[in-house]
Amino acid sequence: MTVEVHDSEVDIVIAALQPNLTPFFQAWQPFFSRFHVIVVKDPELAAELQIPSGFDVKVYTKSDIDGLLGATSINFSGHSCRYFGYLVSRKKYVISIDDNCLPAKDPAGMTVDAVTQHMVNLKTPATPFFFNTLYDPYRKGADFVRGYPFSLREGVECMLSCGLWLHNADYDPMTHVVKRNQRNTNYVDAVMTVPLGAMLPVSGINVAFNREVLGPVMFPGLRIRKEGNHRWDTLEDIWNGLCAKVVCDSLGYGMKTGLPYVMRSDAEAGKALESLKDWEGVKLMDDVLPFFQSVKLSRNGVSVDGCVKELAGIVREKLAPKNPIFAKAADAMEEWTKLWKSHGAQSA
Amino acid sequence: MTVEVHDSEVDIVIAALQPNLTPFFQAWQPFFSRFHVIVVKDPELAAELQIPSGFDVKVYTKSDIDGLLGATSINFSGHSCRYFGYLVSRKKYVISIDDNCLPAKDPAGMTVDAVTQHMVNLKTPATPFFFNTLYDPYRKGADFVRGYPFSLREGVECMLSCGLWLHNADYDPMTHVVKRNQRNTNYVDAVMTVPLGAMLPVSGINVAFNREVLGPVMFPGLRIRKEGNHRWDTLEDIWNGLCAKVVCDSLGYGMKTGLPYVMRSDAEAGKALESLKDWEGVKLMDDVLPFFQSVKLSRNGVSVDGCVKELAGIVREKLAPKNPIFAKAADAMEEWTKLWKSHGAQSA
Repeated sequence: MTVEVHDSEVDIVIAALQPNLTPFFQAWQPFFSRFHVIVVKDPELAAELQIPSGFDVKVYTKSDIDGLLGATSINFSGHSCRYFGYLVSRKKYVISIDDNCLPAKDPAGMTVDAVTQHMVNLKTPATPFFFNTLYDPYRKGADFVRGYPFSLREGVECMLSCGLWLHNADYDPMTHVVKRNQRNTNYVDAVMTVPLGAMLPVSGINVAFNREVLGPVMFPGLRIRKEGNHRWDTLEDIWNGLCAKVVCDSLGYGMKTGLPYVMRSDAEAGKALESLKDWEGVKLMDDVLPFFQSVKLSRNGVSVDGCVKELAGIVREKLAPKNPIFAKAADAMEEWTKLWKSHGAQSA
Repeated sequence: MTVEVHDSEVDIVIAALQPNLTPFFQAWQPFFSRFHVIVVKDPELAAELQIPSGFDVKVYTKSDIDGLLGATSINFSGHSCRYFGYLVSRKKYVISIDDNCLPAKDPAGMTVDAVTQHMVNLKTPATPFFFNTLYDPYRKGADFVRGYPFSLREGVECMLSCGLWLHNADYDPMTHVVKRNQRNTNYVDAVMTVPLGAMLPVSGINVAFNREVLGPVMFPGLRIRKEGNHRWDTLEDIWNGLCAKVVCDSLGYGMKTGLPYVMRSDAEAGKALESLKDWEGVKLMDDVLPFFQSVKLSRNGVSVDGCVKELAGIVREKLAPKNPIFAKAADAMEEWTKLWKSHGAQSA
């Protein structure tokens, strides 16, 4: 399916966790150059950023974050800095890709245009109420299979598109250490809607969403102690994705996963071993997932903002007693709804 | 992942809706020849079956069905005849493939061994409680992604494997008529567990299951009036799959979809147009799907047999008032649990 993508409706948001962005921008030039690019520099990063010319880029640094937000309970360091970009964007859609990812090639050897694929995912309907065994029914050459109710074939709006990774897959530190030589080479040529009620681990490595609608739930909420700036350290995107999925399910929106792939550079297994020693993520998810699987938002939450406030309250009530990290997550979620109201809830 | 597949644990069940099975058996020879094959001849089919030598085949006909079952409210004609094969099999696993399907080729040009792929699906765990974005985590080169709870990485037993179709996809008569030239050429190289609570349209064209466990729920329950012997006429497998999914969800079992593909021969669009005129399937699914999405079996149902009896009762209560076809389905479901107890619930 082809869709029209206008420059005026998309921002690319890049979190700069390393100073030299030249190879990254050069590789993405064919796909990024027509769009406005928001680079948010990790507030912990001292060195000056290197960004090649030829892009419509605006860089935000620690002083921009501090200047705009003042005192806030949200920690924007490391991978979480990208969420500041979501706040200052004025576009309908945001696409965010980690700075250690380059364009992938599909099995035919063609370079994947991740921007267009994300936009196709977001601009074609999602089908969360019944699984289509041939995957995306709107894709060229596909359709709804026998038994798919006709009343559901219009689909619903897709609000988030979760892309994947070739080469270095998005594993936790344990898996990186145990399978240090494993590389993902399996390009699965499919996009699917994650069914209503099913939870998925959304990765922030390669993601796009409808900022206008979903903005109030696109926050860095869960922050692990001693979180560094490696992906395997973080669960902020996983938590964010679970919150977004619960809200989408509650409001009747869809979420897709599958394409596009990006090519992700090697992990440093030695550093993964360091993280492993006191990584909280192992046990956290055993509390987190059952919570999200069972949480039900009231029918009163008719807006994303309302859903987030309600969800933050339930997190505080049910999860915070188990671990103070969840009380902080609830604080961050509530704080984000205020920040969004003041700074994010505006369109171009 | 490789698994051991013993001849003694698998039956191939083929419903013969056409007399000349020679090309079918010849094409499947490399994959079927080591297994016992149960052929059930459509009771409506008069002509004599042609089956090449070199196979361990047992053919069941109308007189076998009548002789074993006597008077029964279940109609075994057309595609439904295969379920008689499920009843008389004595193996742990059953694989069933429509007689108009031949082995497919994968993108590398290798002929797909559908038997082995189904058995890999059934013998490796399923993961219904959380979606793994890299699909089957047990596949070579894959794993559980970051954020996947470690407590869920053992998975649960997979009870049903739903395969797919290249060339002529499994569409309803409307889609066959409207898109008469559309062929499915997209080989998606992935197997996934359908999440807990998510419903899918299981196709009987290319399916495998654990007969010992799931047998009591593998029945031809829903029968459309004027159902012919074209796939697009039927919803018996869709209904069956929804029942099986609800039972699996209730008992903590998994169900997978994706691989293997089979190559399916062309539909006859002219005949699809005939079916279209009074096909009940269009409206039926608008009642059926919401029912299955909301049905909850009690915790008392600790066996598949118990779940089916309970489910039949709920069908009778909630769906039968809308359409007498559902009362007949409930009758068939209850009848099947009796037939299974008398004839099916035995292993080799």
